[in-house]
Amino acid sequence: MSSVSVIGRGITSFGKKEASIKSMLIQACKAALLEAGRPRIDAVFVGNFGSGTLANQEILGSMLTNELGLGNAPSMKVEGACASGGLAFRQGYQLVKAGEYDTVLVAGAEKMTGSDTATITNAINLAMDNDSSEGASGLTFPGFFGVLANRYMHEYGAEKKHLAMVALKNRTYAMNNPIAQFRKEISMEEIMHARPVTEPLGLFDCSPITDGAAAVVIQKGEGGVEVLASGQASGTPLMQEAKDLLHIPATYESGKRAYEAAGLGPTDIDVVELHDCFSMTEIIAIEELGLFEKGKGWEAVEAGKTKHGGMVPVNTSGGLLSKGHPIGATGIAQIIQIVDQLRGNAVNQVDNARIGLAQNLGGTGAYSIVHLFRKRGA
Amino acid sequence: MSSVSVIGRGITSFGKKEASIKSMLIQACKAALLEAGRPRIDAVFVGNFGSGTLANQEILGSMLTNELGLGNAPSMKVEGACASGGLAFRQGYQLVKAGEYDTVLVAGAEKMTGSDTATITNAINLAMDNDSSEGASGLTFPGFFGVLANRYMHEYGAEKKHLAMVALKNRTYAMNNPIAQFRKEISMEEIMHARPVTEPLGLFDCSPITDGAAAVVIQKGEGGVEVLASGQASGTPLMQEAKDLLHIPATYESGKRAYEAAGLGPTDIDVVELHDCFSMTEIIAIEELGLFEKGKGWEAVEAGKTKHGGMVPVNTSGGLLSKGHPIGATGIAQIIQIVDQLRGNAVNQVDNARIGLAQNLGGTGAYSIVHLFRKRGA
Repeated sequence: MSSVSVIGRGITSFGKKEASIKSMLIQACKAALLEAGRPRIDAVFVGNFGSGTLANQEILGSMLTNELGLGNAPSMKVEGACASGGLAFRQGYQLVKAGEYDTVLVAGAEKMTGSDTATITNAINLAMDNDSSEGASGLTFPGFFGVLANRYMHEYGAEKKHLAMVALKNRTYAMNNPIAQFRKEISMEEIMHARPVTEPLGLFDCSPITDGAAAVVIQKGEGGVEVLASGQASGTPLMQEAKDLLHIPATYESGKRAYEAAGLGPTDIDVVELHDCFSMTEIIAIEELGLFEKGKGWEAVEAGKTKHGGMVPVNTSGGLLSKGHPIGATGIAQIIQIVDQLRGNAVNQVDNARIGLAQNLGGTGAYSIVHLFRKRGA
Repeated sequence: MSSVSVIGRGITSFGKKEASIKSMLIQACKAALLEAGRPRIDAVFVGNFGSGTLANQEILGSMLTNELGLGNAPSMKVEGACASGGLAFRQGYQLVKAGEYDTVLVAGAEKMTGSDTATITNAINLAMDNDSSEGASGLTFPGFFGVLANRYMHEYGAEKKHLAMVALKNRTYAMNNPIAQFRKEISMEEIMHARPVTEPLGLFDCSPITDGAAAVVIQKGEGGVEVLASGQASGTPLMQEAKDLLHIPATYESGKRAYEAAGLGPTDIDVVELHDCFSMTEIIAIEELGLFEKGKGWEAVEAGKTKHGGMVPVNTSGGLLSKGHPIGATGIAQIIQIVDQLRGNAVNQVDNARIGLAQNLGGTGAYSIVHLFRKRGA
């Protein structure tokens, strides 16, 4: 087993962009390759969810390999709904760790704007099981997580304002992030009274439609931020199969597997990027990852434990809610923020960050993947 | 490095089917798992190209894992155009070889019928680089391989009848294959005078629109047919970048890498399944894989060297041309035919087959992947 490092990272700005998925991918990859010192690349993995339906383009792996002049390097696209980026990273990491490749490029991208609302909604809903009664009944992601939020508030005494606190925290972080989609200051008042999406979720409780790309170079050896472990799990894509609506087994299992592989636990984690596709999802995730007790996540948010000065700052990049959520890019962008934190040059840098965690969710819990990273010498 | 085996295989019939992509996948996987003795599955890889555009469904990995009751096993979809199945197999093989997993399930599927012709044509064309002048100029796959065929005939003296001989051979093999899409006998006459698609390619020179799924179980150890090597390469997706239209570098490179990894060469191969998306593509592939000299493939076909009794029987399953081409399933279906040949119970069994090769192409040469297999004890 080799030691494995992230030795380069590149990212586009996130938002509504004129650029094609191809040009965004090229931009992010060129930046990552340049930072890595232009190493020879043995394989390319691209995380993407909906390029076929939203960007009129598949074969992203080969197209990118060709455009970057990487010769005949093996390449592919990896899809796992909103976890596509994290899953692509895992492929690269596992195969470098195993000695199959020395150096790989992992990229993620999504082009989401430019289609009409129905097309985008349909495309996103491909991350549900449409060959089921739930697909036929018109369940959507805001619908699913709205139900979760109602149930959570009912069970544990949380209120709508706790969801708003998550949204406010992440917006406040995003204000310092030059690549973030939303950097305008907002108030609790505005969040609480925003246009409703699915009760109790309002506009600021939901991640936006975003274009963007991100890329990292992974290499065998000790040249950069260490990748400690990868934990991945699948779960049911169906709400009707959930034994407990407030438990997302894939998130829990992916965390458990990563902790076990690294010989670490939740208390070792200094900084976290996790999948806040909705404000509610962040609260569930901090519980499933063992950072806070089940049912107590909202209290942790209220007490400021997920911010600077608290126990473990979460989504210092601004998260999906305010940095934006270009689906295939999200998992890689999360990893980039953790890498930056462990390099010590992140936006919203956490003092003395040594161990970082990135969690990427797909669907309503169809996939979850956790990666753990360590600062060298820490 | 562990020895790696294929210990189970399952496949649906190929053709126009009422079944959904989900139910086809489940059927193929259940058969493969049953044959393998229902082992514990550590990960699931699904090869698929166009489920988002053609089958209104992504998250095939998680959906399948859940439906099969495989717990929280990591899963994902792998996309590499028509090579998606082969690429999914490679992921499973590499990670078992590396010791990351003991036993994995690899499936491939495509649901292609049920959409109108324009939707299907657009979906297939996603395997080209549409963010290029070639995309804008309306190049299609029959167009590309038609140009190749004209060029080949011009350069090397082949005639339309040599293309027809490939189509006839593969149809003759398919007539014995119960899962094949086309089992009706056809004559050289019919092939030569069939409806033209793109000159010189007629209807029988082109692979059809097909529904189907296929699956295999890969396991560490010596329990089944041995997987010897995997060779993968990317190439340009653009015709305008080809230095030589009659050279598909990805095919050549993928073969070279697999031969080198296995310490074997073309003369060691007893039976081949290769990517005959068009009759012309089979002739190019037997040359690129080193089975016959460049420019001499058509002579080999004419002399019967790619049939039983010849040097190396090619596409004894009936090939994409007559067995059918459900895109994501194709790479796995090819491997199943090779596994069957090395088990000694294949349709169109080749006597004393010891070493088999499966080659799966994506796009016009954007991806190619070659796997080599060996009969245990041979």
